[in-house]
Amino acid sequence: MSEFHSKIKTIEWCKTNDGGYSLMVDQTKIPYSFEKVEIKTLNSMYDAIKTMIVRGAPAIGIAGAHGCALYALELLSKHSLSNPHDGDFWQNTPEQDIANDKKEEFIKKLLEGFEYLNSSRPTAVNLSWAIEKQKEIVQNSKNLSAGMLCKNLIKNAIKLENEDIEINKRIGDYGAEIIPKGAGILTHCNAGALATVGYGTALGVVRSAFAKDNTVQVFADETRPRGQGAKITTFELVQDGIPVTLITDGMCSYFMRNKMIDVVVVGADRIAANGDTANKIGTSTVAIAAKYYNIPFYIAAPKSTIDLSIQSGNDIVIELRDEEEVTMVNGKRICAEGVKIINPSFDVTDNTLIAGIITEDGIFKPSELSSKLKK
Amino acid sequence: MSEFHSKIKTIEWCKTNDGGYSLMVDQTKIPYSFEKVEIKTLNSMYDAIKTMIVRGAPAIGIAGAHGCALYALELLSKHSLSNPHDGDFWQNTPEQDIANDKKEEFIKKLLEGFEYLNSSRPTAVNLSWAIEKQKEIVQNSKNLSAGMLCKNLIKNAIKLENEDIEINKRIGDYGAEIIPKGAGILTHCNAGALATVGYGTALGVVRSAFAKDNTVQVFADETRPRGQGAKITTFELVQDGIPVTLITDGMCSYFMRNKMIDVVVVGADRIAANGDTANKIGTSTVAIAAKYYNIPFYIAAPKSTIDLSIQSGNDIVIELRDEEEVTMVNGKRICAEGVKIINPSFDVTDNTLIAGIITEDGIFKPSELSSKLKK
Repeated sequence: MSEFHSKIKTIEWCKTNDGGYSLMVDQTKIPYSFEKVEIKTLNSMYDAIKTMIVRGAPAIGIAGAHGCALYALELLSKHSLSNPHDGDFWQNTPEQDIANDKKEEFIKKLLEGFEYLNSSRPTAVNLSWAIEKQKEIVQNSKNLSAGMLCKNLIKNAIKLENEDIEINKRIGDYGAEIIPKGAGILTHCNAGALATVGYGTALGVVRSAFAKDNTVQVFADETRPRGQGAKITTFELVQDGIPVTLITDGMCSYFMRNKMIDVVVVGADRIAANGDTANKIGTSTVAIAAKYYNIPFYIAAPKSTIDLSIQSGNDIVIELRDEEEVTMVNGKRICAEGVKIINPSFDVTDNTLIAGIITEDGIFKPSELSSKLKK
Repeated sequence: MSEFHSKIKTIEWCKTNDGGYSLMVDQTKIPYSFEKVEIKTLNSMYDAIKTMIVRGAPAIGIAGAHGCALYALELLSKHSLSNPHDGDFWQNTPEQDIANDKKEEFIKKLLEGFEYLNSSRPTAVNLSWAIEKQKEIVQNSKNLSAGMLCKNLIKNAIKLENEDIEINKRIGDYGAEIIPKGAGILTHCNAGALATVGYGTALGVVRSAFAKDNTVQVFADETRPRGQGAKITTFELVQDGIPVTLITDGMCSYFMRNKMIDVVVVGADRIAANGDTANKIGTSTVAIAAKYYNIPFYIAAPKSTIDLSIQSGNDIVIELRDEEEVTMVNGKRICAEGVKIINPSFDVTDNTLIAGIITEDGIFKPSELSSKLKK
């Protein structure tokens, strides 16, 4: 497995005597500053996801898992028989738990909180996938104390966190195989360390490829309106010493026509059973250009991004976001007053445009997903 | 001919007793303010074109014609036998002219100035086309006085100015024929009143279509890096009350997939003999997406944009511009330090992607250009 490490830990559970909290990089501040924020409640996790303090499908998944655990701690604290801040949560006793007749109410509220958190952003399936994983923990812990249930939710969140890095490295290693020597690799948005716990999916492939061949280089689409390519992808690649050229979103055809792009690798927010893929707005435009120039276009994503319950891209819900993301850049308006805005945050890339989907279990053709990944 | 008028006069010659000067909208200030600047020398015209105070292929052509006349006035003023500011330039006498033995030197210097002006921007052919027209005036005025030569250069500049509007309206009327009722029209960059003297090529088509059917609407690509779509196209369409939705450059595929775009119309900076077309960076990306979704993609441009001396798009020189256009927006950096930038200002759209080229003489298929337009 690749020994190349990113210097960034995007999101992690910090254990404390009270149980702990979620510590995440504030991605809205990059590249201007690199700050971490502590998220301690369900509501602040909802806001962090909604306002994109944390973004990137796999990172949102982990944030969702953390949010579930945080809400369990909140409810436990509110309903516990004693002051939950007395002593060490990790050593708690029945006296620190909640009354038996409150248990059902506790679980009902908890699951309502999970649903609320799940509504923070609609398109990335990883959020609902991770929350589903936490629901299973609730299901399996029904006969345990509420304190034990909380511990299990935290442990599971940490487990998903660690697995995310392992999965990314496996994606990276599979993906590195399809990167030609000295390749120009185009990517869109940020599917990097900062979109995951700490290695990246599309940029995980780049990291693993670069570890083997330091002549590869990246072309990063700016990715308007929010500019995650310009802000986040360039930031993390420069940090890791991987050569990166920033281009505007319309430029891909120019660089493809001039034979400077050998392969395209992007992440995904939700992959339908037929391989149609929702990813950051602009992705399908790049995929169409790549097809025109006969350049292979790959998706790099964990299996948790594949949603076999959805048949095709037409059924994926596309989030529409605020006008200001388009009309304002760094607080200043960039267009005339009186203009109309429609701001879809994602688009759908047809399966016919996708050469392969790079997962932790190998590279699949879009048509193979249903048969090979059916549980 | 269409009776729909734009409220904007982008560039015009202002006659004075000294001969006159070029008055142009400062397009770098739009949409924040609408200011006009007076250009009175060759050097300031060179800078105005280079820094894009005036931009848009047809407008640059007129600016070139003005610049030639301005330089002739400068040289006349420097070498005239009397103070050229005495009396009225338009009524000048032999005493106000230059000495006979200085005439050859005058014309040599003048033509050197034309060449210098022609080097301000390489891609738009209209600049060299207009300067060529002024060279013909010099050629035909060799036996006249220098003052008369100046007058002829000014008169020709004004003639080209007036013709530009007429040509645009004919382009608009031909183009309106191919716009379906209630169409969503996508355009890229600004090929509007502000790219021409006052009506527009691609937006001339929009204006003529809107005059016939006020249910058409425009989708304007932002057009990074300089944002002429966001800044200039939205500005002039809002001014004229034509509905316009601003989208980011990557979004075209989304709106095409969702059947909101019925036709694409853009301008051109240079059209090769085979129909390959150089236009603002990002144009070919849109053209490829349009082809993928079977949406007709049209170029709207005066015949002066067609360069039959160039066989294919591969031979068109593409201007590379400053890094800061990509890295800075409104004076603030939008990406990490340490990133590499390549900033091509134009790209080439293959002739196979173009449904037709809308000119003042009708709509041509790319393959028809050579045969139908040969002089």
